[in-house]
Amino acid sequence: LLTDFGLRDPYVGIMKGAMLRRAPALTLVDLSHEVAAQDLSEAAFWLARSHAWFAPGTVHLVVVDPGVGTERRALAVCARGHYFVAPDNGVLEGVLARPYEARQLDETALELNVQSRTFHGRDIFGPAAALLASSSLPFARVGPVCDPLERRRLPSAEWQGETLVATVVSVDRFGNLITNAERSQLDSSDLCVELAGRSLPMVATYAELAPGECGALLGSFDTVEVACREGNASAMLGVGRGSEVRFKRVASPS
Amino acid sequence: LLTDFGLRDPYVGIMKGAMLRRAPALTLVDLSHEVAAQDLSEAAFWLARSHAWFAPGTVHLVVVDPGVGTERRALAVCARGHYFVAPDNGVLEGVLARPYEARQLDETALELNVQSRTFHGRDIFGPAAALLASSSLPFARVGPVCDPLERRRLPSAEWQGETLVATVVSVDRFGNLITNAERSQLDSSDLCVELAGRSLPMVATYAELAPGECGALLGSFDTVEVACREGNASAMLGVGRGSEVRFKRVASPS
Amino acid sequence: LLTDFGLRDPYVGIMKGAMLRRAPALTLVDLSHEVAAQDLSEAAFWLARSHAWFAPGTVHLVVVDPGVGTERRALAVCARGHYFVAPDNGVLEGVLARPYEARQLDETALELNVQSRTFHGRDIFGPAAALLASSSLPFARVGPVCDPLERRRLPSAEWQGETLVATVVSVDRFGNLITNAERSQLDSSDLCVELAGRSLPMVATYAELAPGECGALLGSFDTVEVACREGNASAMLGVGRGSEVRFKRVASPS
Repeated sequence: LLTDFGLRDPYVGIMKGAMLRRAPALTLVDLSHEVAAQDLSEAAFWLARSHAWFAPGTVHLVVVDPGVGTERRALAVCARGHYFVAPDNGVLEGVLARPYEARQLDETALELNVQSRTFHGRDIFGPAAALLASSSLPFARVGPVCDPLERRRLPSAEWQGETLVATVVSVDRFGNLITNAERSQLDSSDLCVELAGRSLPMVATYAELAPGECGALLGSFDTVEVACREGNASAMLGVGRGSEVRFKRVASPS
Repeated sequence: LLTDFGLRDPYVGIMKGAMLRRAPALTLVDLSHEVAAQDLSEAAFWLARSHAWFAPGTVHLVVVDPGVGTERRALAVCARGHYFVAPDNGVLEGVLARPYEARQLDETALELNVQSRTFHGRDIFGPAAALLASSSLPFARVGPVCDPLERRRLPSAEWQGETLVATVVSVDRFGNLITNAERSQLDSSDLCVELAGRSLPMVATYAELAPGECGALLGSFDTVEVACREGNASAMLGVGRGSEVRFKRVASPS
Repeated sequence: LLTDFGLRDPYVGIMKGAMLRRAPALTLVDLSHEVAAQDLSEAAFWLARSHAWFAPGTVHLVVVDPGVGTERRALAVCARGHYFVAPDNGVLEGVLARPYEARQLDETALELNVQSRTFHGRDIFGPAAALLASSSLPFARVGPVCDPLERRRLPSAEWQGETLVATVVSVDRFGNLITNAERSQLDSSDLCVELAGRSLPMVATYAELAPGECGALLGSFDTVEVACREGNASAMLGVGRGSEVRFKRVASPS
């Protein structure tokens, strides 16, 4: 489950109640409910980076839904051996590797009882995901095949000459700056990192940094993170989400 | 589970441990643990609005308990096809539709081992709810029938002439102002909404509002909410919990 | 599960995905994920005070791991009828009552696929705990016996003449100041409590305090807490974690 509902209000719990009502034996796992309100790109990033750690066949329910109450479609998608249930608003962009199959949820076929125009997590997405996860509903019967999907552009890092220009896409609890520079975009050349007017080293582990020192390293999601050993890089550098990070090739002494 | 324990401290987890110890196969769902500390009326409101979304027969455990350590009774109640376990302090007021049956938890019959005067979620309410939910304890054996119960007055909206006077009972993460004006109190007449010295429109969905515009609509719990499309109504209007909201009949042009 | 991952980021959810992938039938309980970042002594305190409320044989997974990426060992420990999986950094100190058996996790024997140097909750500790909890891996096969362990000193309260000198080890959501003065360190003598330049009474329950009054009482974890009836002791007294609390014997009138 990935939503922007927050944990203070009872919305996540009510959605779970509506799910367990249809499928009492479900195992429910919270990925995060603290996505910034209506922030599709943060949700899309984490979904793309997270889903593969779950067992194949897992149903991933994503409700970040600024268009609730409008005509935006409700989708179920089968891709990469996983299922995804979400609004058609681009939040699935990072997982739509071809071949995939997308279907539009059919409220009648699903016997949904849609009682609100504001809480489709409870009334549509949650129950559909529950039925799908419980195997009581084959994927082919959630509704008609549909295509294409609304796309947002997930920002991606790009090489410009000798510089890989990336963006901070998330700042975690520890103050680590998580960028969209991917492992596959790095080559074997030595790089230095520039952000906020500073130059930082690239290291292999936190332990190569002195306590309080900042550096960049390949993080646990195959993207580069800027971290501060025993400290908070975001606070230390005064850098947050959306900031630019530049990786520059260093001329090797030869 | 609905408590004011918060998620930072280990109290919820310890209560769950004590529950699973008695009934290992339980499915536990968190409704919210972030009710304002000792705020009985917010807890009562959400319990009343939430419980029906869970499967019939669900046991709802509510521990908001400012009187812990005093002589207040511990209750189990069967009402509306659900069970409720909570202190006798009015938090169940919103679910006590007649006919209901209330029983006072009997520590001896339940074989509870009450080790503290401050954490009855762990020592009394949690274990009792676990036993009840696991079907190892019939409701009739939790303790003797008791009556009446402590009541708080849940504030309700009231018509005064041509105006329905309501209160903001909760502000959610998105800044929506959730009022106690119920669907059943509205008739077919056109209404305009006044709060904080402003007049707002009544709309059917968020989509009828311009981005950044505030309006009132029937929310997902059959009460009226004041929302701001793509924004935060609470911040925008400078209005919080306890504020008055007035719904006025508009003379229809004829 | 006890970590410092926080609930805003998807780290806890991803770790759970990796666990359920190995052992789909697990019951997972969150103790807390909001331990102060990298705060080993708070985690050690709560683990020591919490584990006994869970069923015997429970696997307790603790990931507070400032040394991730260094050579610190990964441990599984059997002690007091429970299992503990954690880094070898002292976080288990409070549960290591002899006799205990400690083993170093063997990544090869566990068929772990360690993909990061920064997220061993997902790659090592979580999967090992899942295998152990699912009974598919006997404790004796997690890796070789090892000894001794890294120790931190959990601060303990000490009698100095007629005064028991204690420390505030945690401040909970309600503002209660939880100290390390244990029930077993108190005798039958009358005590008064001094902190922040004030003298407070020792009471048996909250109800002995007037609304708004602060006092000390034996809390629900067999240590003394300083609480304020219907208020927040931490805010009221201006006292936080690490503060000293002195319990002084009062000369009884004879």
